[in-house]
Amino acid sequence: MIEIPQNNINRKLKIAHIAPVATTIPAEKSGSVELVSALLTEELVKRGHDVTLFATGTTKTSARLFATFPQGYWENIDMWPWEHFELVHLAAACERADQFDVIQYQAAYYPMSLAFSRLIKTPMTHTLHHQPFPEQRDLWACYPEANLVAISNYQRNALVGLNCAAVIPHGIDLENFTFSDKTDDYLVFFGRFTEGKGPLQAIEVAKRVGMRLLMAAPDSGYYYDEVERHVDGEQIVYLGELGQEEKVALLGGARAMIYPMQIGEPFGLVLIEAMACGTPVAALNKGAAPEIVVDGLSGYVSNTLDELVAKLPDVMALPRRPIRQYAEDHYSAEAMTNGYEALYYRLVAEREARESAGFNGGEIDRPEYAFSGLRPSR
Amino acid sequence: MIEIPQNNINRKLKIAHIAPVATTIPAEKSGSVELVSALLTEELVKRGHDVTLFATGTTKTSARLFATFPQGYWENIDMWPWEHFELVHLAAACERADQFDVIQYQAAYYPMSLAFSRLIKTPMTHTLHHQPFPEQRDLWACYPEANLVAISNYQRNALVGLNCAAVIPHGIDLENFTFSDKTDDYLVFFGRFTEGKGPLQAIEVAKRVGMRLLMAAPDSGYYYDEVERHVDGEQIVYLGELGQEEKVALLGGARAMIYPMQIGEPFGLVLIEAMACGTPVAALNKGAAPEIVVDGLSGYVSNTLDELVAKLPDVMALPRRPIRQYAEDHYSAEAMTNGYEALYYRLVAEREARESAGFNGGEIDRPEYAFSGLRPSR
Repeated sequence: MIEIPQNNINRKLKIAHIAPVATTIPAEKSGSVELVSALLTEELVKRGHDVTLFATGTTKTSARLFATFPQGYWENIDMWPWEHFELVHLAAACERADQFDVIQYQAAYYPMSLAFSRLIKTPMTHTLHHQPFPEQRDLWACYPEANLVAISNYQRNALVGLNCAAVIPHGIDLENFTFSDKTDDYLVFFGRFTEGKGPLQAIEVAKRVGMRLLMAAPDSGYYYDEVERHVDGEQIVYLGELGQEEKVALLGGARAMIYPMQIGEPFGLVLIEAMACGTPVAALNKGAAPEIVVDGLSGYVSNTLDELVAKLPDVMALPRRPIRQYAEDHYSAEAMTNGYEALYYRLVAEREARESAGFNGGEIDRPEYAFSGLRPSR
Repeated sequence: MIEIPQNNINRKLKIAHIAPVATTIPAEKSGSVELVSALLTEELVKRGHDVTLFATGTTKTSARLFATFPQGYWENIDMWPWEHFELVHLAAACERADQFDVIQYQAAYYPMSLAFSRLIKTPMTHTLHHQPFPEQRDLWACYPEANLVAISNYQRNALVGLNCAAVIPHGIDLENFTFSDKTDDYLVFFGRFTEGKGPLQAIEVAKRVGMRLLMAAPDSGYYYDEVERHVDGEQIVYLGELGQEEKVALLGGARAMIYPMQIGEPFGLVLIEAMACGTPVAALNKGAAPEIVVDGLSGYVSNTLDELVAKLPDVMALPRRPIRQYAEDHYSAEAMTNGYEALYYRLVAEREARESAGFNGGEIDRPEYAFSGLRPSR
């Protein structure tokens, strides 16, 4: 084990932070990876670190901005294939690796950064934003030493055999989500309209308990195919995609958030946004929901929709102030940054200890046929 | 200018050859990148070079095989996203760069290898297999020093401002395409069924001149939507996707190949396959066709379909032996390998000259905002 010198914790680090180049950091409306990238950058700068943010030229940041492209590929459809743009952008940071103590990569889609991790000496951290399926995990196992950052224990559990260097839940800017104790008589559904997010189940819950449901999300094919027919503008209301102020007003006024996720997701930014406004959550037991929603404090997690309906009165009866307090204690930008900062200090100290011992890491042999599948005949 | 020491030409090189990992090298049926990768590898090995082929585990090769994956992603749909598999495979070679004098990358889709080129000291060559559109060229311009290999002058002309280190046309294994002087009374269309390849125009030509047209290609949506209705099994015949022997018999027996390409392609492997069998080509003036089809020798290139129809008797009247001879002189695996070998010797000599002069290349500044588009406000 390597001791981290105590004086390290006052040391200011040179950090390369590689955000996606799909759009500006933060995104103008939706974009959780962009939001987290912006928050982490601002908080690291606030703590005195020398941060270079690799992002689109449209980005406004307190860090030094390095932009290879003026815009993102969500804005400019000629930037195709988008993967090549992400690659060249990522490479720009890796080519300058010697200028940094640590390189932080936000894997908006998949950790393409792994492929660069052995070509540079600077330690890299790769934050995962999706739940890997087994074949992806097998591929990533080509880099068993890479410093993966999981955003929940649920996600970490999918990384068996890999090096999960830290579990760091997302934080939000709590100032932007003001606490509200004045609620109206409605439930809220938030998040994209996909089968996996469970908008139809949210509607079912509202109908069964006889309450209004206000839904906010960008429209989509699934909305028009499956959701719209249930929207009557009275009990079931669709509000479109909201800006920040409307969003906070909607969350703060809700008696509860209905979160009937049908698939396992590694996080749920809307959960902590609701909690920051003091709003309790009625969630299904999928993905990271039971880690974020604390039974009897910030909501209840149920195994079935029947159970969720039965528990909804208990959810709505929870006092709102402790929910806000819980969000402040666990899901602030500061808490998230504490996690990243501790990881960066550890990796920098480990590298320096290795190098001062004259040990340069040696050759790490890539396991041949790391990918599970048929073994070839030769 | 750097003189290449004469003793260099007997020197055996350590070459990493990175083929795609979509399928085996060569592919079992269609796959021009795979075919060219296999041919170049075999010929380099034959010349005594120490070649490591990075490819799928199913590959059979005379070179040393380095396989990160047992199979290719065309065979195993769980290998997704395929880009990440290509990346990890490419990185395996780059991580071992110091073991090689040169690294050859076959850009089956796009040159993702560019992103690695400044992170290693070994010179890389990036062979392009598609015609870049302008926004791709702009992206690649982030690496103005990278050694791109074009497969035709038509393709090179799309690389304005980039470093096209060589133009090296594809070669084929001429032994596999036997010359034939005994022809039957039919025309042939070869290649995928897409609008761009012009199968409908080939059918129109056959009908206008009253000859049979035999078509060979894998079926596709476009075939069933647009082509099948013209196939009567008498004048217009569809033979499916052929194996090598049937393919050579079909090509060798044709009076002419109809090549009514509607879009500009950077090469046309079927053109040199036909020519190797002695079969002349009636082509439209698109892409690299006029570089490969020599008017009055191996066929005629026309600007319109009317002109192509009018010239078809002249095409069919061309003596077949000189066509074969032209293919032997220009499109053998040996000729292609001569091109690559000369390039490799030059790059190795340049690197050694630079290093012995104590010049290590310095910092190449990546142009910010290399990508053409709006300049951001800050």
